[in-house]
Amino acid sequence: MGALAKTAESDRLRVVLVATRNPLNIGAAARAMSNFGFRHLRVVKPYEPAFREARSAVGASDVLASAEQFESVAEAVADCTLVVGTTAVRHRQLHHLLRGPADGARLIRKRLSASRVALLFGSEKFGLSNTDLSHCHWLIRIPTNEKNISMNLGQAVAVCLYELIREGKGTRGPEKVALASSAEVERITRMLLEALRESGFLDMRRVADSEERIRRVVRRLKIQERDAVIWLGMLRQILWKLRSGRETGE
Amino acid sequence: MGALAKTAESDRLRVVLVATRNPLNIGAAARAMSNFGFRHLRVVKPYEPAFREARSAVGASDVLASAEQFESVAEAVADCTLVVGTTAVRHRQLHHLLRGPADGARLIRKRLSASRVALLFGSEKFGLSNTDLSHCHWLIRIPTNEKNISMNLGQAVAVCLYELIREGKGTRGPEKVALASSAEVERITRMLLEALRESGFLDMRRVADSEERIRRVVRRLKIQERDAVIWLGMLRQILWKLRSGRETGE
Repeated sequence: MGALAKTAESDRLRVVLVATRNPLNIGAAARAMSNFGFRHLRVVKPYEPAFREARSAVGASDVLASAEQFESVAEAVADCTLVVGTTAVRHRQLHHLLRGPADGARLIRKRLSASRVALLFGSEKFGLSNTDLSHCHWLIRIPTNEKNISMNLGQAVAVCLYELIREGKGTRGPEKVALASSAEVERITRMLLEALRESGFLDMRRVADSEERIRRVVRRLKIQERDAVIWLGMLRQILWKLRSGRETGE
Repeated sequence: MGALAKTAESDRLRVVLVATRNPLNIGAAARAMSNFGFRHLRVVKPYEPAFREARSAVGASDVLASAEQFESVAEAVADCTLVVGTTAVRHRQLHHLLRGPADGARLIRKRLSASRVALLFGSEKFGLSNTDLSHCHWLIRIPTNEKNISMNLGQAVAVCLYELIREGKGTRGPEKVALASSAEVERITRMLLEALRESGFLDMRRVADSEERIRRVVRRLKIQERDAVIWLGMLRQILWKLRSGRETGE
């Protein structure tokens, strides 16, 4: 086996399929997971009949049977400290750092030694939306040919998971710093967004994607676990003051 | 692109599907080939209706349209100097040398620089027969989990081809992230401290080192260079609002 022979580490990965439509693809993703020793599948807003059909298929695996269903990406990644999206896009303006699968897998493995990681795959037709992407720390792009960049979903999952178990040379030691979970980072983001709304900052910006932009900016900070509480505290106090100012002032 | 960016080399590979039954799998193999820049598909004794169906499928690629059909493995690999089989088998007595995908891909790439190589995939149910295997120089085995070793055909093709184009060691390093300068971080820190003072947060804390603590907390964030301006902007606006609230309110 490869670099992730330790069950504890592969058990920390969450494969998250967002808005998948084709039951065969959900089944294929589950099969690749089972082939490479990963167990935890999460689906976000799947096309309902597709998910039911995939689950009830003959020979549906344990992976599929124990798949968890979520209403939003935020909920599906809440307990993870690293959220990685996947994309085929090459030229479109992306606001995220793009990594190759090898480099990406190395970083994911590193994080899996200590905490949970979510690996997101978008729908067959549209990939991950900008809102989905705003929950991601960075993206993996499989280096496909320009003439046909878009991979089949099940095959993309297989390639990414293969990279994770691929025999690597000298995987490096675990990361020393404990980072805040996605749930904590999202709480901080929401508090900040409230403060920005209250202060008029968001109104000043006529761009449609302001919220997503702020979400990405916060994720780029790498807030540490031990600092999550103080950031929440600072923002809560600022927000309280902004609101109390408004109430007495107006 | 990866190690096989040169078209001449990828054009020397022949992907050979032996006795494939499911048209979806032939289509999936062709799609992975197209994704990774390989063009020459050969099928040996396919289940006829399956092959016809795959070829006539909507969106069937050039790869599929130009696929060649053969009656035997011998004919299908005749013009190649290296023939590599694929197998999921681990324990069965095999007469061939088994290589991992990384090692195998390295040797295939080497050979492709000068001559043609055939990469064989067996049927969904039985894999390659002993007769098929007898045409092979050696075999590639993808390191799958003991509990579910058998991969979906299209996914196995995708993983093997991905290995062929995978970026080798030291081709491209990770993108370097430019971090904000100390001067910028300090400007952000001061603006934050002002906002905290204004909101009463600092007064609440009777510890002498509050300021330094906040400074350390900010430095533990890895603020990127490109984000420095927006953080300053957000804090400036919040600070302005906190002050204007006070002036009107009191």
